[in-house]
Amino acid sequence: MKLLKYDIQSTKLQEFINVSSYIKSAIRETGLISGKVTLFCPHTTAGLTINENADPDVVSDMIRALDKVFPIIGDYDHYEGNSHAHLKSSCVGVDQMVIVQNKNPILGTWQSVYFCEFDGPRKRQLIMTIEGEFDE
Amino acid sequence: MKLLKYDIQSTKLQEFINVSSYIKSAIRETGLISGKVTLFCPHTTAGLTINENADPDVVSDMIRALDKVFPIIGDYDHYEGNSHAHLKSSCVGVDQMVIVQNKNPILGTWQSVYFCEFDGPRKRQLIMTIEGEFDE
Amino acid sequence: MKLLKYDIQSTKLQEFINVSSYIKSAIRETGLISGKVTLFCPHTTAGLTINENADPDVVSDMIRALDKVFPIIGDYDHYEGNSHAHLKSSCVGVDQMVIVQNKNPILGTWQSVYFCEFDGPRKRQLIMTIEGEFDE
Repeated sequence: MKLLKYDIQSTKLQEFINVSSYIKSAIRETGLISGKVTLFCPHTTAGLTINENADPDVVSDMIRALDKVFPIIGDYDHYEGNSHAHLKSSCVGVDQMVIVQNKNPILGTWQSVYFCEFDGPRKRQLIMTIEGEFDE
Repeated sequence: MKLLKYDIQSTKLQEFINVSSYIKSAIRETGLISGKVTLFCPHTTAGLTINENADPDVVSDMIRALDKVFPIIGDYDHYEGNSHAHLKSSCVGVDQMVIVQNKNPILGTWQSVYFCEFDGPRKRQLIMTIEGEFDE
Repeated sequence: MKLLKYDIQSTKLQEFINVSSYIKSAIRETGLISGKVTLFCPHTTAGLTINENADPDVVSDMIRALDKVFPIIGDYDHYEGNSHAHLKSSCVGVDQMVIVQNKNPILGTWQSVYFCEFDGPRKRQLIMTIEGEFDE
């Protein structure tokens, strides 16, 4: 198992950042032929999800709908005022597994992996473990 | 690590399809004794979850409640009109890990694994990786 | 891959129980140096999530907000009257992966792993698989 860390800079309060290219880069860098890449977000107001990469309206619809479900201003006690972001993080989750075969991630045609910023802009970290069969 | 792919045919707009039998079939087919089966849904309007298999009202309650949280008709821009399904997919997630011991999945008494169709009916795919100790 | 099981006793209807110490205990008990711990909740009205451990208001805000999204009393048919708990379980999920390096879980400063009780109080079980390089 190999471990890689990447810096992510978010630029908005809420934003889904496509990190699929980081997975391809991790595959190249480690020489993974087949196996699994597991992404982990070490933050409690951000998360990871897989969703559509074709029409950017999907991601903006998702952010707007999540705001209705877990409103930014709400019945919260947490003094930092970002409980909505903690809720969204637990809803989408902070880990995501991706299968790799023949040096490529096995994702559906429309799937990309997104780092979900719910309380930015901030400097964030993305951690990956890479397991399987590697090039010599 | 072994990789298997299964076809899933959904028959409704929204439906939870019990795929626990596919896991048992994957264990038999690969000869897995102990390890992990990881399921992956390569679609952005479907997902995977584990929930109750005894009373079918649980699953129908879940579909109805998710419709209240992420309504089919809502304040969405995505031209395909299925943003609700993308949201439900990210809420339940597209991967699910199941532990295997003595050739059996370790699931609670009431747990089954469901392929969650949120924008059917469609032909879908279910991908599984199988890792661990195998029969000779 | 090693397998461990722990008993968890919840004391309220809904409660997030910090189980990070169980992960540290599993690392010590198995001699894991680096690898992964995967937690699994074998229940359909409980789950697992990672979230903030510093201000306890975050967790209580989360439980209260989840009650608004998936109300305890609602338009449900399930005869046991706990469909809200099934929904919350599928929302946060029943598995959680944690990376281990140098005998320590790699978690963010504010992250802890929580066993989420949504239909307690009950005696529950927490299952863990431990994979990677172990001490001799």
